[in-house]
Amino acid sequence: MTFISQSRRLRETPFTSGVVAAGVKAYTVYNRMLLPTVFQDVESDYRHLKTHVQVWDVSVERQVELNGPDAARLMQMMTPRNLSRMQDDQCYYVPIVDHKGRMLNDPVAIKHSETRWWISIADSDLLFWVKGLALGAGLDVDVFEPDVSPLAVQGPKADMLMERVFGPIVHDIRFFRQKRLSFNSQSFLVARSGYSKQGGFEIYVEGTKNGMPLWDTLFMAGRDLEVRAGCPNLIERIEGGLLSYGNDMTMENTPFECGLGKFCNAPDDVDYIGKSALRAEAATGPSRQVRAVAIDGAPLPPAQACWQLHDKGTPVGKVTSAVWSPDIGTNVAIAMVEASHWDAGRTLTVETPKGPRAAQVQSRFWN
Amino acid sequence: MTFISQSRRLRETPFTSGVVAAGVKAYTVYNRMLLPTVFQDVESDYRHLKTHVQVWDVSVERQVELNGPDAARLMQMMTPRNLSRMQDDQCYYVPIVDHKGRMLNDPVAIKHSETRWWISIADSDLLFWVKGLALGAGLDVDVFEPDVSPLAVQGPKADMLMERVFGPIVHDIRFFRQKRLSFNSQSFLVARSGYSKQGGFEIYVEGTKNGMPLWDTLFMAGRDLEVRAGCPNLIERIEGGLLSYGNDMTMENTPFECGLGKFCNAPDDVDYIGKSALRAEAATGPSRQVRAVAIDGAPLPPAQACWQLHDKGTPVGKVTSAVWSPDIGTNVAIAMVEASHWDAGRTLTVETPKGPRAAQVQSRFWN
Repeated sequence: MTFISQSRRLRETPFTSGVVAAGVKAYTVYNRMLLPTVFQDVESDYRHLKTHVQVWDVSVERQVELNGPDAARLMQMMTPRNLSRMQDDQCYYVPIVDHKGRMLNDPVAIKHSETRWWISIADSDLLFWVKGLALGAGLDVDVFEPDVSPLAVQGPKADMLMERVFGPIVHDIRFFRQKRLSFNSQSFLVARSGYSKQGGFEIYVEGTKNGMPLWDTLFMAGRDLEVRAGCPNLIERIEGGLLSYGNDMTMENTPFECGLGKFCNAPDDVDYIGKSALRAEAATGPSRQVRAVAIDGAPLPPAQACWQLHDKGTPVGKVTSAVWSPDIGTNVAIAMVEASHWDAGRTLTVETPKGPRAAQVQSRFWN
Repeated sequence: MTFISQSRRLRETPFTSGVVAAGVKAYTVYNRMLLPTVFQDVESDYRHLKTHVQVWDVSVERQVELNGPDAARLMQMMTPRNLSRMQDDQCYYVPIVDHKGRMLNDPVAIKHSETRWWISIADSDLLFWVKGLALGAGLDVDVFEPDVSPLAVQGPKADMLMERVFGPIVHDIRFFRQKRLSFNSQSFLVARSGYSKQGGFEIYVEGTKNGMPLWDTLFMAGRDLEVRAGCPNLIERIEGGLLSYGNDMTMENTPFECGLGKFCNAPDDVDYIGKSALRAEAATGPSRQVRAVAIDGAPLPPAQACWQLHDKGTPVGKVTSAVWSPDIGTNVAIAMVEASHWDAGRTLTVETPKGPRAAQVQSRFWN
C-alpha cells in the first residue's frame, strides 16, 4: 500500500479527531474528503460490524441543499423517479442522469418540504451540476453545500445504542424515513438508512462543532455493546450488493444497466432530463447489467481496477468490485455483464491479478 | 502518514505503471485520480527539479471539451477574462466563477478553434458545471471529458530533453502557446506551461494507449540529463506562489481575493456569470487577499489544514499552505490575509502545530 499526502484540499471532517484517536489505518478520498476504510483490518472490521455496532464517519456524504420556490421543480427535473407522492419524512434513492440518461450520481434525496431538499451525494461534485442547471434555466432556488455531516450507526445493536442516546422514539423511525431528534440543545435529522445490510441509522449532524460531542456520547453510551469506530466495509457491501458510484457504475452507465430501472417510474406527463433516452432504453431493455458473480479458487486481493470477463476469449463484461468473503467462502464480486451472458448459472472466465479464474453469475447477491 | 486504499474509483492514469516502476512513495487524489506527491523525498525531489529535468504524470489535469457552434459563447459566459483577442494557439489562465463571483475552478483554457475548446481543470468536477449550464441554457454544444492526459516535462533541462524527442521546433513554442507536434504516428498538442517556475512543457497525450510509449521514450532520451519521474513539488510551488485550488482558494473566494484581478478584464458589453458581483468588488477592492508569508523559527511540517493568523489575538487571516524551504532558509507560506493587515513587512502571529510563531507578510513570492 502507498501513503496518502494530506492537505487542506483533502478535507477533514467534524469527526476526524475521533477517527484518528480510534486508530484509523487507511483512508480513501471521497468528494474531496477523507473517508476511513480500515480500522483493525477489513476482515475483523467486517466480523465486528455483523456482530455488534459501529459508528461511521460518513461526512463524505455531502449535502446539496435546494432552497426556494423552484426547489421541487428542480428536484423532479433531475431524476426519472416519480417524486409526486414523496412525503416530508421520506428519503428516496434517486438516480441522477444527464440528457443521455447516463448516471451522474446515485444519491439519497431528503425532502424537508416542497421548497427545501437535501441531496446526500455519492462521489461526484453534484453541487456543480445542480448549480449550473439552476442558473442556466433561470430557476428561483438557492443551491449550496450546508455544514452537515452524516454520522452512521450500523450493526445489529444499532437500535439499542441509538435508544440510549436519543430515546425510544428511534424505534418509530421506519426504513428510509426520518425524524428530527434532540441531542443536547440541538435537533438533528435522523434516518433509518446506511451503507450496510446490518441495519442502522444516519444522523445528519448540523454544525461542525456539534460533531465530536455526539461522537463521544455514542462511544460512552455503547461501551458494554462493544461499540467501535468503523466504516463502509468492502466485504459486507459486496455480499449485500450495495453499489459504489465510481466503482460499479460511472458516467458510462444508465440506471437500467445499474439495476435501478424500478426507480425510472415518473409518469408520462412529467418532464425530466434524459427522459427520451431512458424511455428508448426501457423499450428495448439494457444491453448489459450489474450482476453478482462468484469467483472460484483461493482468496483474491480486493480489486483495485476492472477485471475483464470473457467467454472463451470473447469479452462479455468486467468485474468492478471483488474481495474474498469468509462467510460465503468464495470470492464475491460485482460485475457489469453483457445481456448474452448475464443469466444465472453461467460460467465465465475472469482475468484476475492471480491469473484467469472461473466465475459463476449468481441469481442475486448474498445478503 | 496513513495509507491510501486503492480502487477503480480513484482512477489510474495512462502512466501509472511508469510511476509505480519509478518508486512513487505517496499519492494525493485530485479529480478522483491518483497524483504522485513524493518519489525520493520532498526535498530531494525539489533539488532535482531545480537542477535537471523531470517527467510528471499530471493526468489529473482532466480536460473538459466544448465542441459545437455555441462553444465560444459558452466559454466566454463562464469567465470574466476577455477572450475576444485570444488566438488559436494560445492557452489562457481563466478564473471560473459562479453567479456570486466565487471561484469554482482556476483552469487553463486551450482554444483549438472558435467551435472547439479544452478546459484543463484544477481539482473540482467542472465538467458538471459546464454540462449543467449548457443544458439549462439550451446551448448547441457537446460537453464531455475526452481521453486526454497531460504529461509535464519540467526543469532547467526541459528544452534539451524535449528537443531530442520532438525536434528543435520545441524552441519556437512561446510561453502559454501551443503547437501540434508529431510523436510516432500520432500528433499531440504541446504547450510551454506547467505547475513549476523551472520552465518546461505539457504534452496533452491523446489516447490512453499512447501514454507509456511516450513516457519510455522520454526516459530513454534523457538518461544523460539525469531525467527522473517527478511531480508538482510543495516547496517549489510555494516559493513560486503557484496557488492550489482547494488549498489556497476555495468556493469561498473571489478572483480578486486570489490576486487574479488582472484576469477580470472582459469589456463592459460582454456578459458573463458573476459580472455584477465582480464589478461591485472591483469598485471597492477585496477585503482580503493572498499573500506570501515567511514564518520564523525551526523547520515546520507541511501544513495539512489551515493555520490561524492573528494580531495580538485578533483574527486576521489564515495560512493555507506552508513548508520549510532549504533554499530560502525559512518556512515559506501562502496565506489569505485581511486588508487591515496585508501590507508587506507586517508581523503577525500564526498558530502552527509547533505552537505560535512570528510571521512576516512579504511584498512578493520568492521565485
